[in-house]
Amino acid sequence: MTKHFDDELAELKVRLLYMSGLVEEMLGFAVKALAERKAELTSEVFKKEEEVNKLQVEIDDRCLKLIALYQPAAADLRFLTSAIKINSELERMGDQAVNIAGSGLELLKHPPLKKLIDIPYTAGLVKEMVRSSLDAFVRGDIELAHTVLANDSKVDELKEQIFRELLFFMLADQKTITVALQLILVSRHLERIADHATNIAEDVIFIVSGKDVRHHFKYI
Amino acid sequence: MTKHFDDELAELKVRLLYMSGLVEEMLGFAVKALAERKAELTSEVFKKEEEVNKLQVEIDDRCLKLIALYQPAAADLRFLTSAIKINSELERMGDQAVNIAGSGLELLKHPPLKKLIDIPYTAGLVKEMVRSSLDAFVRGDIELAHTVLANDSKVDELKEQIFRELLFFMLADQKTITVALQLILVSRHLERIADHATNIAEDVIFIVSGKDVRHHFKYI
Repeated sequence: MTKHFDDELAELKVRLLYMSGLVEEMLGFAVKALAERKAELTSEVFKKEEEVNKLQVEIDDRCLKLIALYQPAAADLRFLTSAIKINSELERMGDQAVNIAGSGLELLKHPPLKKLIDIPYTAGLVKEMVRSSLDAFVRGDIELAHTVLANDSKVDELKEQIFRELLFFMLADQKTITVALQLILVSRHLERIADHATNIAEDVIFIVSGKDVRHHFKYI
Repeated sequence: MTKHFDDELAELKVRLLYMSGLVEEMLGFAVKALAERKAELTSEVFKKEEEVNKLQVEIDDRCLKLIALYQPAAADLRFLTSAIKINSELERMGDQAVNIAGSGLELLKHPPLKKLIDIPYTAGLVKEMVRSSLDAFVRGDIELAHTVLANDSKVDELKEQIFRELLFFMLADQKTITVALQLILVSRHLERIADHATNIAEDVIFIVSGKDVRHHFKYI
C-alpha cells in the first residue's frame, strides 16, 4: 500500500464533491436552457452526463477497493457504504437534469406560456440542497444536513404551487395543456433531485448521530 | 461468531426476498384500490410501508455487520454493498406504491374517466420486474436480469401510450383534466418502480459478469 487510508479517503471526498459540482452545473444549464429558451445550452447537460457516468464507475471502484484493502472499522465502513449509495444518488440527479433538458427541448417547440419564475427559483433551492447535502456528508455536518431537510419541504410546497398554477392555465385555455404538462413534469424532475439530496442528508444524520431519520420525516 | 458466513448470507437473501414480496403486495393493493375504486384497500399499503421501513433498517444493519465481522473478499463484498443499494431501491419502490395509493384516494373523489386497462396492465409488468430483479440478484441469474431490462422498455412505451391517451381526453374535454393528470402521475409512479427494478437488474449484470451496463442501456 503506497498511500495511507486517510489520504485515500480525502481523495474520495474530493471526487464526490467534484461529481456533485458537475451535477449542479447540469441542473443550472438545463434550467437556463428552459427559462431563457436557449436550446444550445442543453448540449452542455448531455456532455457533462457522460462525465458523471464515468465518475460513478470510478467512485464505486474506489469505495470497494478501500473496504477490501483496509478493512475499516465501523465508522469508516459506514462512511464508505454511504459513499456508494450517495454516488448512485448523484448519478440519478444527473439523469433528472437530462430529463429537464429533454423537456426544455420539447418546450422550445411551442410559444412560451408565461415568464418562468417559480421553476428557476425552485431550481436554485434544489442546487443549494445538492451542494449542502454533499458538503454535509464530507464534513459530517449534521446542522447543514438539517437545512437540506428544511429546504425539501419548501421545494414540495413550490411543486404544489406550480401544479395549481399550471392546472389553472389548462382549465382556462386548453391550448396551454401540452406546454403546461411539460412544465409540471419539469417541476417533478426538480422534486426528484431534491429527494435525492434529502436521502443524502438523512444518511449524514444517520452516520453522524446514529439516529435514523429516514422514516421519520416522511410522516411530518 | 455463532453462525457461518454462508448461513448469514442465506438469511440476508431471505429477508430481501421477503421485503420485495411486501413491495409487490403494496403495489398490488394500491393499483387494485385505484382500478376497483375501493378506498379501504389503500390502508393495506400504508400498513405494509411501515414494515418495509423497519426492514430497511434491519437489512442495512445486517449488511454492515457482515462486512465488519467477516471482512469478505471481492465477490462477497460486492454482493453485500449491492444488497445495501438494493435495500434502498426496495424502500423507494414502497414509497412509490404509497404515492399510487394517495393518487387513488384523490381519484375516488371524482367520477371515473374510463375503465382502467393500461394502468393495471403496466402494474402487472412492473410487479413482475420487481420479483425478477430480486430473484436475479439472490440467484446471480444474469438472464433473468436481462428480462427486467426488456420489460423496462415495454413499461416506457406503455407510459407514453397512457400519456397520449390522457392528453387526448384533456384536449377533448377540460372537465377531465384533474382526473387525467392524476392518472398521468400514477403511470409515472409505476415507471419509477420499474426504474428501481432496472437499477437492481443492472447491478446484477455488473456483479455477475463484471460488465457495467448501467450507462449503456440508457442510450438505447
